Amino acid sequence: MITGVLLPERVQLLTLVIALSMVTTPFIIKLGDWWLNLTALDEDETAITNTTAQTPNATEVNGKVIIAGFGRVGRRVAQLLERAGVEYIALDNNHERVNQFRGEGFNVFFGDACKLKVLQSAGAAHATMLLFSLDNFTNLEHLVKDVRRHYPKIQIHARAHDIAHCETLLNDGANQVVSETLEAGLRLGEMALINSGFDKVKANGVVAEFRLELYSALYDNVLYKSHPPN
Amino acid sequence: MITGVLLPERVQLLTLVIALSMVTTPFIIKLGDWWLNLTALDEDETAITNTTAQTPNATEVNGKVIIAGFGRVGRRVAQLLERAGVEYIALDNNHERVNQFRGEGFNVFFGDACKLKVLQSAGAAHATMLLFSLDNFTNLEHLVKDVRRHYPKIQIHARAHDIAHCETLLNDGANQVVSETLEAGLRLGEMALINSGFDKVKANGVVAEFRLELYSALYDNVLYKSHPPN
Repeated sequence: MITGVLLPERVQLLTLVIALSMVTTPFIIKLGDWWLNLTALDEDETAITNTTAQTPNATEVNGKVIIAGFGRVGRRVAQLLERAGVEYIALDNNHERVNQFRGEGFNVFFGDACKLKVLQSAGAAHATMLLFSLDNFTNLEHLVKDVRRHYPKIQIHARAHDIAHCETLLNDGANQVVSETLEAGLRLGEMALINSGFDKVKANGVVAEFRLELYSALYDNVLYKSHPPN
Repeated sequence: MITGVLLPERVQLLTLVIALSMVTTPFIIKLGDWWLNLTALDEDETAITNTTAQTPNATEVNGKVIIAGFGRVGRRVAQLLERAGVEYIALDNNHERVNQFRGEGFNVFFGDACKLKVLQSAGAAHATMLLFSLDNFTNLEHLVKDVRRHYPKIQIHARAHDIAHCETLLNDGANQVVSETLEAGLRLGEMALINSGFDKVKANGVVAEFRLELYSALYDNVLYKSHPPN
């Protein structure tokens, strides 16, 4: 493990601080809930508050989805999950970014999502899904392999550059992948179709069919390689 | 204009060669059509062949959509347009790429799409749409402004990095924009929703609504800035 100028003891201390901040924050939130509950007992929220006031277990604390990387892509995912009422916990190794977006109400913590220990602190053992939305693709293949080996059951989703990169990540153990160049191309193409006189529904249909074909071919290809016919 | 080690005369010659190759290629194709027509006169294609055997005018030669940049994004757009039967002409300044994809049947030509003269040679004056799918975003704002000034009526579509970049390009004169990080985030989020138990139609609906909100806010914002209320 490359730790730069940090001594191993310092790294351990940092990991502990991160883990502690993750564990304590929900308690503070629960304390707030408890206070609200005490001051507004006559309202209809009692049932919910009672449920959330229980001692949090690991699954509750860490949420169901871990978002690794809180750049533009990770933030959009978080917004979408929040809007749909799906719990998440996000990690990013940029202090300023974490401070800014925690301030805006996002459930994001400081931590290098490329380190297994940090993912572990974020509750990887209890999470159902780990979503890689890292800005930097270096080491992503390696990381996907590592996570797959340590957590055989977790769903790994990843942002990839293109279809070839998608295939590599699927072979490394990812369950679902998104090619960012493909998605951008499909959206640009869809707009061009609409501006060429196609109605929206038809343009959308052509795009959906094309996307399905490309991703199906990709998943079939990976499946074929991992289970070649006898 | 920075031309590196090329002398202005050489640049002019190159531009001429590019323009000539664009103009002659369709004639060669037409010659093929004419030959097919001559050798298969008894078939039902005569009407179509007769039409296409006319002297091509600029609009026919250059297609309706110009794709500037034939990297992964540009190629996906081209595939989609081809599949939907929409004519295009693509430009890229990478020789190998152009040779490879011309060989695979794409209508792509060598030329630096960042130069107005090249866009002009590709038929910008007659095209209805110019679609920027450049890998490198440097100078894109400048280029959009230039094209808008020279071709006030052309529809400019552009691939942008994020929503802030989208806003800049719209202010510079683009008509439609796609944020690649937003699109990747929405797709990753949609998959996460489906894996969290949402059915596909509902997940798709949540994503479509979120996308519409974000882009509407963006276009409203640009409109507001360009036409502030009195």
